[in-house]
This record gives sequence, structure tokens and C-alpha cells, in this order.
Amino acid sequence: MLTLKRSEVKRAQARAAQILEQAGIALSAQEKEQIEIAGFGLGNLESQGLELITYANTDRYCAKELVLFAEQTCPEHLHPPIGGEEGKMETFRCRWGRVLLYVEGEVTPDIQAVLPAGSEACYTVFHEIVLDPGQQYTIPPGTKHWFQGGADGAIVSEFSSTSRDEFDIFTDPAIVRVAAIEEDEAE
Amino acid sequence: MLTLKRSEVKRAQARAAQILEQAGIALSAQEKEQIEIAGFGLGNLESQGLELITYANTDRYCAKELVLFAEQTCPEHLHPPIGGEEGKMETFRCRWGRVLLYVEGEVTPDIQAVLPAGSEACYTVFHEIVLDPGQQYTIPPGTKHWFQGGADGAIVSEFSSTSRDEFDIFTDPAIVRVAAIEEDEAE
Repeated sequence: MLTLKRSEVKRAQARAAQILEQAGIALSAQEKEQIEIAGFGLGNLESQGLELITYANTDRYCAKELVLFAEQTCPEHLHPPIGGEEGKMETFRCRWGRVLLYVEGEVTPDIQAVLPAGSEACYTVFHEIVLDPGQQYTIPPGTKHWFQGGADGAIVSEFSSTSRDEFDIFTDPAIVRVAAIEEDEAE
Repeated sequence: MLTLKRSEVKRAQARAAQILEQAGIALSAQEKEQIEIAGFGLGNLESQGLELITYANTDRYCAKELVLFAEQTCPEHLHPPIGGEEGKMETFRCRWGRVLLYVEGEVTPDIQAVLPAGSEACYTVFHEIVLDPGQQYTIPPGTKHWFQGGADGAIVSEFSSTSRDEFDIFTDPAIVRVAAIEEDEAE
């Protein structure tokens, strides 16, 4: 597993906070400090990663703000059924920028996204949905999906059933959803 | 029941759309045309009313954007249990402006809101929560609550369990949650 360094996490948090601020999306000081930086254990955040703020995650619903840097990709995964309950269902609403979303279904010829170099084999669904601000799409439970920020990145509001990220099933067997952070060496 | 006229609804839709636009919240053309204008059968939208966009309302979760005009009040109500399921649980997140929220609990002395003239008796809970952009509060199921826009109005994202507005219980017996709209007379 390839971890992110604390300093890298802090830089990514500041960058995500800046993107949200310029889009007019207000966060509390505590939320800014706690922005989740997901590197998926791949050690290359710019290529495959995601920045998240979880506003609410109760046993009845969940709401998050997702930030994608320019051309950053959230790797392909699905949300399985858990304990007799259907897998997570989620509505993605683009708030700023552009998000390129790929789900199971008819393959779109000449997709706009560029597959992350070296991980091409771990992307298998190519039905393209392009979301600009004010557009949204609901991903049914159990459906493989992945998404990529456009040329300027993207902000996406995610409205969903309860999140249990630790159960997500990724196509890439190297992925660890909740990876440790490596402390920087003392100088 | 006092209905709103079609022309009044259209004016309120345009005003809500303008507030959302200046706050940088994008809506599709169809969403702008379908902004829900709730007059609650009271016929005085400026005083007691609410403007809503429902982004998603599935059997697992719901997400809406709420707009309050300056000093406009959404009347006191609660969400009862339905068919064995607990009442609606909702998280209010202020996106723009200021919202004054009142719930059951210790009465706040000298609340900031002004009770709607003539309807004072229909407001009975006065525990005040002031939400500015980036602040949020979760209202437990079955809790009486009401809320008012501040001096500039407010935009609030509501993340919740499934909405079944027709079952809401209002303190004011004159209220009709989903009221008809009166067509304007032909000129």
C-alpha cells in the first residue's frame, strides 16, 4: 500500500478548500481542517484520488460534497448490499466545473475521460454521463461506476442512502479505501 | 383556504431563481420553471411561505434546496411516524444568507425572529438556532420546528430521509400544505 504523507494531505486539503471557496460553497473552519483526502492506497493522488466533506451520515441518509481536481479520477467501484439492505444508492449533482461519470451500460464511443496511466485494466464500464452545473444523475445500488474531473476539476454534491465506505468493492485489487497517512520525517 | 394566483407563483419562482443564481447555485431551466411555491393555504406568501427545489426524493433519502425570502417564515410543524417508520429526520445546512431555526427545548430569551402577524398563537417552540453559511443542524424525527429567513433571506440545503410532505402536522389548523393555485382571470 502506498500512503500519502501528512504534508501532501494538508496541501490537498488547502487546494480543495480553495476550489470550494471560489465556487461560493461555505465550510466551517473545522470542516476545512477535516477534509478527507482519499488516495486509495495508490500513492498518486493527482491521478487517482478524491476529496470529500461529509455533512451528514446517519442510519437513514448521507450527504457529502466531493471535490475532484482537474482530471483526477475516483477509481471504479460498486456499493454492495449489506446485512439484507440494498447497496448504497447515490445522486450526483454537479455544482461547479464538469464531472465525467461512467456507469454500466452501452459503451460510449470515444469517451472524454483519459484512463489513469498504468491502471487502464482496472476500468471496465464506459457508459458516459457528462454533468455540468445544475445537472444530476442517480446511480442505482450495486452498479459499477467511476468518475473524473474535467479540465478545471469539479464539485459534486452527493445525496445518498447511508455510506459504509469500508465495504465498497473496487475493481483494482491494489486499492485500500481508507488508507493510513504517513507522518513526515522530522527535519 | 386562501390560494395563490398563478401570476404570484410565477413572480415568486423568478425571485427564488434570482436568489439562487446570485449565490452561485445552478439550476436547470426545467428546475427553474418547477420551483415549488408553498403558500400553505394562508394567502400571504411574503409572511408565511417557502420556496423549494426537490433534487431527489427516493424511498431511501431526499435532498432539497429551500429558499426563504427576507423575513419569510415556514410555519411550525412536525414530521410524524408513518407506517411503522420514524418521522422524517432532516439536516439543514445554510448555504447563503441567514436562517433562524426554532425547535423544541429551552426557550431562548429575546429571539431574533418576528412572529408572523396574526398567527402568533400558532408558534409554540422557541429554542433558537442561528445558522450562517457553512453551519448546519439536524432536527430529530417528531420534533416541532419552524424557521425564518434573516434580513436578506436564506438558502438552505435540506438532507433528509424520505419526504412525505402531505403527512406533515402543522400547529396552525388553517394550513393546507399542498394548496391549489388559482388561475388569473383572462384579461
